[in-house]
Formats: sequence, structure tokens, C-alpha cells
Amino acid sequence: MPSEVRWLTAQEERVWRGWLTLNARLSATLHRELHDDAGLSMPDFEVLVHLTDSPAGRLRVSDLSRLLQWERSRVSHHVTRMESRRLVQRVECAEDGRGAFVVITPEGRAASEQAAPGHVYTVRRLVFDALSPEEIEALAAIIDKLLAQVDNQPDPLPTH
Amino acid sequence: MPSEVRWLTAQEERVWRGWLTLNARLSATLHRELHDDAGLSMPDFEVLVHLTDSPAGRLRVSDLSRLLQWERSRVSHHVTRMESRRLVQRVECAEDGRGAFVVITPEGRAASEQAAPGHVYTVRRLVFDALSPEEIEALAAIIDKLLAQVDNQPDPLPTH
Repeated sequence: MPSEVRWLTAQEERVWRGWLTLNARLSATLHRELHDDAGLSMPDFEVLVHLTDSPAGRLRVSDLSRLLQWERSRVSHHVTRMESRRLVQRVECAEDGRGAFVVITPEGRAASEQAAPGHVYTVRRLVFDALSPEEIEALAAIIDKLLAQVDNQPDPLPTH
Repeated sequence: MPSEVRWLTAQEERVWRGWLTLNARLSATLHRELHDDAGLSMPDFEVLVHLTDSPAGRLRVSDLSRLLQWERSRVSHHVTRMESRRLVQRVECAEDGRGAFVVITPEGRAASEQAAPGHVYTVRRLVFDALSPEEIEALAAIIDKLLAQVDNQPDPLPTH
């Protein structure tokens, strides 16, 4: 860090605060809807989405960790809690020693299918319906740039 | 919800996933830095920022709840934990019956001042340094539109 701090300008401060407020509002709304519709939390739903996107509905903890951008210990703990609710199951993989798979259960698929329409409806209503095609284009470009910038940093996830 | 779900287009899906990933990456990085620099979590820091922004460094739980977009019970629990670490203090306000103030302590101010330079440096480096002035302008407009859209919805915060 340089000795001289370049504090944020008034506009940058407003953008950053707005970003944080927007995220807090969006996640509160999405969390509440998932809970009411299917008894899921937002983290539950994110795990289920990645599993339903995977062939055979299964992923290793290490892959889930990368896709979710969570530390492995958080993934493990969360999977344990979801397992006790029968949404996922851990299946050992004897042949390769690279650790267990997390597999979505029929109950997990049912919960995800129950949650998805309302979730998508809300994302569309709160985000995409408010923006013009040009703004969606601009937002896509900005997000790509910021993801590249963040990916350019040392990996924040511990490897163990 | 309409009976016909308008699923997200490929581009919208990409923007939404990118948004979620970006937020997960940014908060993991910012959280880790705050913790290393000043022993604070991101929620701790957000509480302290709102208190330092307030006259006399104090706010009611209801005002913190609105500013942070957290439910009141979450604010209360979090303030209790921060109180046990001497970062804030609850001060009863006898005269008006509208509940206690949360007041930042000298230790809370010191932690916030210790965390701020590194935090701002990282926000600048990961977000604003990656964007042109035109992109910051576009992002500001998009965030304002989305905040207006979200604020246009029924309040997700319980009033009790």
C-alpha cells in the first residue's frame, strides 16, 4: 500500500455505497423469496444451481469452492447442513483419492425447481426490466472488466 | 408471478452470474484485508463507517437497520457482539423512549481508522482503477436506476 492514500472521490464514494446498498437490498429480497417459496437460503440455492448445471448433478468440494468463491471449509460445513436436510448427499469416490463428490438428491432438485421460477422472475423484475439493452451491454462489459481485475489478484481462497 | 416464466437470456444469465461472482470475490478480498489490518469483519466495518459518518458518532438501532439494510434483529445481535469487543457501546436514551443509541467507542474509531486506508486502497485498485471515467459514469447511472427499482418494491425489512 502506498504511504499516500488516494481517498475516493465523491462520485466514487457514491458508486461504492450504492453498490453495497444495492447488493444488500437484492440479497435480502432474493433470500426472503427463496425461503418462502422453497425453504432455501441464497447459499443453498447457489449450491443447488451449480449442481444442477453439472453433468450427473455432482461436483467435488474443490470445484464447488471455486465456482462459489467460498473457502473449502465453508463449502464443507454448508454441504453438511444441506445433507442433514436431504438436499445433497456426499458420495465417496474410491478409485481416485481426490475426495468425495457432492451429489444433488431428488429432494434437492425438487426444491431447486420450486424456487427457480420465482427467483428468475424477481431477478428479471429488479435488475433486467429496469435497464435498457444498451445499459445491460454496458453492465456486462463493466462486470467483465472488474472480474478480470479481481482475477488478476493473488487468489483469496486458501488451497488447503 | 405470471404463469409463464420469462427465463433469463444467455446474456442476462452471464451478467447475473458475473455479478454474483464479482461480489463474492470482492467481499472475500475486502473481508480478509479488514481482518488482517484491524481484526474487523466487513459487517463490523460497515457499522463503524455509518457511526463515524453520524454526528457525535451515534445512531439508533432503527437507523442502523435502514442504513445497513439489515433486519433489526441482525443489527441488535451484531451490536451485542461488537459491544463485547468494545468497538461500540449501547447508551440508553431516557427522555424519548425511542430506544438506545449505538455509540462508537475510541477503540472503534481507532479500528476504523486503522482499516480505512487499506480498504480504500483495495476498493480503488479492484474497482475504480479498472474503469474509465465514462464507465464509472455509466455504472453510477445503472446503480441509481437499480436502486430506484428495488426501492419501488415493498420494503423487505420487517418493521418490528
